[in-house]
Amino acid sequence: MKILILGGDGFCGWPTSLYLSKVGHEVVIADNLSRRQIDVLLAVESLTPIASIDERLASWKKQTNKSISYVELDVAQEYDKLLEVIKNVKPDAVVHFAEQRSAPYSMKSPKTKRYTVDNNVNATHNLMCALVESGSDAHVVHLGSMGVYGYGWSGSAPIPEGYLPVTIDTPDGSLVREILHPANPGSVYHLTKTLDQLMFAFYAKNDQLRVTDLHQGIVWGTQTSETLLDEALINRFDYDGDYGTVLNRFLMEAAIKRPLSVHGSGGQTRAFIHIKDSVRCIEIALNNPPKKGDKPKIFNQMTETYTVKELAELIAKLTGAKIEYVTNPRKEDDQNDLVVENQQFLALGLSPTTLSDGLLVEIEQIAKKYAKRIDQSKIPAKSTWNRTIKLTKQ
Amino acid sequence: MKILILGGDGFCGWPTSLYLSKVGHEVVIADNLSRRQIDVLLAVESLTPIASIDERLASWKKQTNKSISYVELDVAQEYDKLLEVIKNVKPDAVVHFAEQRSAPYSMKSPKTKRYTVDNNVNATHNLMCALVESGSDAHVVHLGSMGVYGYGWSGSAPIPEGYLPVTIDTPDGSLVREILHPANPGSVYHLTKTLDQLMFAFYAKNDQLRVTDLHQGIVWGTQTSETLLDEALINRFDYDGDYGTVLNRFLMEAAIKRPLSVHGSGGQTRAFIHIKDSVRCIEIALNNPPKKGDKPKIFNQMTETYTVKELAELIAKLTGAKIEYVTNPRKEDDQNDLVVENQQFLALGLSPTTLSDGLLVEIEQIAKKYAKRIDQSKIPAKSTWNRTIKLTKQ
Repeated sequence: MKILILGGDGFCGWPTSLYLSKVGHEVVIADNLSRRQIDVLLAVESLTPIASIDERLASWKKQTNKSISYVELDVAQEYDKLLEVIKNVKPDAVVHFAEQRSAPYSMKSPKTKRYTVDNNVNATHNLMCALVESGSDAHVVHLGSMGVYGYGWSGSAPIPEGYLPVTIDTPDGSLVREILHPANPGSVYHLTKTLDQLMFAFYAKNDQLRVTDLHQGIVWGTQTSETLLDEALINRFDYDGDYGTVLNRFLMEAAIKRPLSVHGSGGQTRAFIHIKDSVRCIEIALNNPPKKGDKPKIFNQMTETYTVKELAELIAKLTGAKIEYVTNPRKEDDQNDLVVENQQFLALGLSPTTLSDGLLVEIEQIAKKYAKRIDQSKIPAKSTWNRTIKLTKQ
Repeated sequence: MKILILGGDGFCGWPTSLYLSKVGHEVVIADNLSRRQIDVLLAVESLTPIASIDERLASWKKQTNKSISYVELDVAQEYDKLLEVIKNVKPDAVVHFAEQRSAPYSMKSPKTKRYTVDNNVNATHNLMCALVESGSDAHVVHLGSMGVYGYGWSGSAPIPEGYLPVTIDTPDGSLVREILHPANPGSVYHLTKTLDQLMFAFYAKNDQLRVTDLHQGIVWGTQTSETLLDEALINRFDYDGDYGTVLNRFLMEAAIKRPLSVHGSGGQTRAFIHIKDSVRCIEIALNNPPKKGDKPKIFNQMTETYTVKELAELIAKLTGAKIEYVTNPRKEDDQNDLVVENQQFLALGLSPTTLSDGLLVEIEQIAKKYAKRIDQSKIPAKSTWNRTIKLTKQ
């Protein structure tokens, strides 16, 4: 099919674009290169050396003889151009990654909070409007977040895939209704994903747009079979305090022989998925669109859960690193359970890469290999969630 | 108290500002005069002749010897100025009316859809950010909408005030939880009010902001005791197809001796409240703020319900007008029940003005009195909800 990938230059967007191109789809990337620009402003770089978008696309052509087109486009700011691209490309599907995707960055300052809301809400809403205005029936596949649910609000009940059956008492007896799972976002970034959900539900109802929303866990891993073909195709590895995940922070700390910095008690459970599986999930979602008139289809895109402490212990075991406990910059419970349903993707053929199987590759092929490129001062997470949280000097 | 009123020049904002000034509060209006600018673009005017903001404030000073301050401010676009205003005014409360408030206008075109989302989301979010950044503990009172709930999704159960108790089955037995009532907005405008709710919940949780959200029905009536003091203080009466409510459309049709145009079968039930009661509700909300750390306090701000057909029949009886049935431009059920809880305001002293008591004043003192100012071509509602709805020529 013809697939337009908004945000196709980013950490998830790039390997998704390559994979969908490899399996035979016609891929058009639209991106404003904002992720690279934020790197400039934060004075950090991906640990892995990222080629320019032109070099990336030229290398892909050389390696595979397949072409991926690229349009420079700010989805949130350039509505008319977005509309033209949709009219010209006539995509069968649009994969929507065009959002600011870091929770700590979204909490860093009033400016980054406002940017995250303005960018993410307008990107999603512009896409909805442009599809309606152009009369396109393209299936939208959007990257949401497990963070829309919050944690454990319903006790030990597993978090369902998007919709929750509830019973409501009424004067005429009990009613059972399937509702969108109540939102409980933990950051401004996660908040925007809960706003996206309501926009999708509205446009599916009012204009019969077909939308799939993927509530993804923390993506780990750097390379896919496609990004490995050439160093100019390499994917990002972020390790700075804002864009680096907890896993990447631990990997870097181990690589430079520092203790692994666990926030709080490390009792927070997180959901994980390997980038290869993430890419495969998007393919599965593209192949299984909702029908016209359906409410948005929602998948939980994760394959396993670990507490932060368990994760640190796993990496400590593989690397010999020590563990250190520091103040948590986030406002969150110190401990939480996280039980998640993810049957839909497994039933459709997803075969997960687990952390215990894949971590060694990250340690050897990424963290150690590129350790010379590190700026150690960028590792600690310094964006605090509110004014009551004071970090000790690290 | 010191009260900053965002959108204090509009249909609800203006009488609220006067009333709060009259009862002794120190009132500062911030407004970008967008409602007047949209009139210019739609080539319509309020039926009642609206004085400039300067004339309005000068008249208030002359009539009452009380001063209301005014700042020209676009809350959604001018964050730095908003922050300065909050730092300088140091308000005890902020009443937030600074949103595009017409459902038909929000569905008129891609441009008005996008403006409504961009303006309303960023206005609310800028306010949240500015309060956090300035360290203000001001109580935010926001005008929401009954439309966040949709209609009758829970059968004959009355719509509760914001929060719904539900029972969830889990492997360990049933859990009862009070959740934010599931959102089911019927237009882009109503959608923005559901997005606001999630932003309020997040900032109440993360930063302990104190927020009251008022889910208001259709406001009817034009004058309050304060706006009646001088013609320069008169409130808006909108009758055009986008900003005029169904009630105002009927009043104008009756005044020019045309049949009352009922959309569809007229079986849609709507909630109503008089502008005097709306203003009084805001005062009650201001006097009963949530505590720091509470979730947002939610009131249903309406006093009675009518079907559109019943409303037409009421006005036909009072005026002798005929009734005519036309295509409904909205995507909505042709019939719906609407049972709403509104005990909180009644318990706190609200004493409602009913349609059956107050309509004659609107007919005589507004519709007939200013009928000479009407542009008849502007009455029909022409903004359709989606591309499948085709209006017959009226």
